[in-house]
Amino acid sequence: MHELVRFGVSMAPELLERFDGLIRRKGYTNRSEAIRDLVRNSLVEEESQQEESEVAGTVTLIYDHHVIGLSDLLNDLQHDFYQAIVSTLHVHLDAHHCLEVLVLQGKAGEVRRIADRLISVKGVKHGKLTLTSTGKGL
Amino acid sequence: MHELVRFGVSMAPELLERFDGLIRRKGYTNRSEAIRDLVRNSLVEEESQQEESEVAGTVTLIYDHHVIGLSDLLNDLQHDFYQAIVSTLHVHLDAHHCLEVLVLQGKAGEVRRIADRLISVKGVKHGKLTLTSTGKGL
Amino acid sequence: MHELVRFGVSMAPELLERFDGLIRRKGYTNRSEAIRDLVRNSLVEEESQQEESEVAGTVTLIYDHHVIGLSDLLNDLQHDFYQAIVSTLHVHLDAHHCLEVLVLQGKAGEVRRIADRLISVKGVKHGKLTLTSTGKGL
Amino acid sequence: MHELVRFGVSMAPELLERFDGLIRRKGYTNRSEAIRDLVRNSLVEEESQQEESEVAGTVTLIYDHHVIGLSDLLNDLQHDFYQAIVSTLHVHLDAHHCLEVLVLQGKAGEVRRIADRLISVKGVKHGKLTLTSTGKGL
Repeated sequence: MHELVRFGVSMAPELLERFDGLIRRKGYTNRSEAIRDLVRNSLVEEESQQEESEVAGTVTLIYDHHVIGLSDLLNDLQHDFYQAIVSTLHVHLDAHHCLEVLVLQGKAGEVRRIADRLISVKGVKHGKLTLTSTGKGL
Repeated sequence: MHELVRFGVSMAPELLERFDGLIRRKGYTNRSEAIRDLVRNSLVEEESQQEESEVAGTVTLIYDHHVIGLSDLLNDLQHDFYQAIVSTLHVHLDAHHCLEVLVLQGKAGEVRRIADRLISVKGVKHGKLTLTSTGKGL
Repeated sequence: MHELVRFGVSMAPELLERFDGLIRRKGYTNRSEAIRDLVRNSLVEEESQQEESEVAGTVTLIYDHHVIGLSDLLNDLQHDFYQAIVSTLHVHLDAHHCLEVLVLQGKAGEVRRIADRLISVKGVKHGKLTLTSTGKGL
Repeated sequence: MHELVRFGVSMAPELLERFDGLIRRKGYTNRSEAIRDLVRNSLVEEESQQEESEVAGTVTLIYDHHVIGLSDLLNDLQHDFYQAIVSTLHVHLDAHHCLEVLVLQGKAGEVRRIADRLISVKGVKHGKLTLTSTGKGL
């Protein structure tokens, strides 16, 4: 879709050989794609440290749905933040445990605060925030 | 559901005061819940470093669905790993960008390999693996 | 030195059992000490994300001292930042490679900028910043 | 010292522009050097996850030297692991707090175990392990 720019990179042969091994192990089709991923990763990392940058993120929650009132509370909380929570996926891991992934979009600082609020709920056994990008400019 | 055990923790007053501040900022209702979360985090972290431990995980992918053949390729790949990929959620971030979250369950090493394979696909702009727990014993 | 406060923590017996296993594997003498470490870790993590908080940190650099001018350049740079760089330790890893650890003290944002500047020097093969605390209030 | 190999990388102009911004902010002199650093980082990351790979590492400890017996205990412990601990740097942060950085060399698994053992000592307020490379093949 976009026209690509091409530029040269110089590297010691030993380093390039080790990199080619990593590329194979991770399944990349060529060096350019692997290098673009490293570049995008470093941009996303920088971006997600700035409170005001627009990001996408996922919050993964593990909880026991037998805990009385928990599902309702999580649902209520999510409605408080409905403008930032785009969508939710629910998986039944076993007879007790649920995994819920929420997709969020908003400023990094706000996304972090919402994640903290959900992860701190009593009955949520494990929670993790993953910040990524909205894709723009990557 | 389970009967809880209670034990005492001793702490310097200055440290406890700072911890209480953190608890408030993160939204925990009490110290026990905050400490249980720290404990569970450290167990999940140890677990996810062991190739053979049974984990749940999410892979978050950002890609441009206008890249020809990309959606089909991602779909094909996911079918290769269908036994470990439980479910998928798709969000349209803007006219170009998709966010896809996959929920995986399996051995940590295998989940990591599947994530590498998906993230390395050309056209996937950003990908991230989040390992969590199946909830058992937490 | 300080008088300790004591408070109760409640936990499911399965979780406590797993935690006791982790405590043994890591070598802690008792639960209180392990929990204090988790608490201090979470405080340090929060602190190091705030640009303005006063932190201590170490920068670890791996480089080949045969690269002409590199040692001088690193030395010059360190003098530019001498007010934040407290001290430096140098280890000869093999005939070619040096490991240098710098101890820094200052605001998190500044420490991060100095680390970026040193790690980006041509000839530095690997560099990593570790933020920790000045110990106050921990 | 080594002859460099040169290869081409293709990238969308928007991505390259953002990367050039990052390069400037971090202080790199050119794209090749920035890309080599990303490549070396990803190799070190993979390496440090493998128990058996030969690594260098630093352990940063913050402790209060007024705690009776602590300095002696840390010293004793370090002698137990003297074959892996290359050298140590000590900094007096204030009237109470010491920062000690230890440089270690050995197999990743062993370095991790030594770090756990030192960090878990009562009186050590904060400890962190940073794994890096011995430089060979980077």
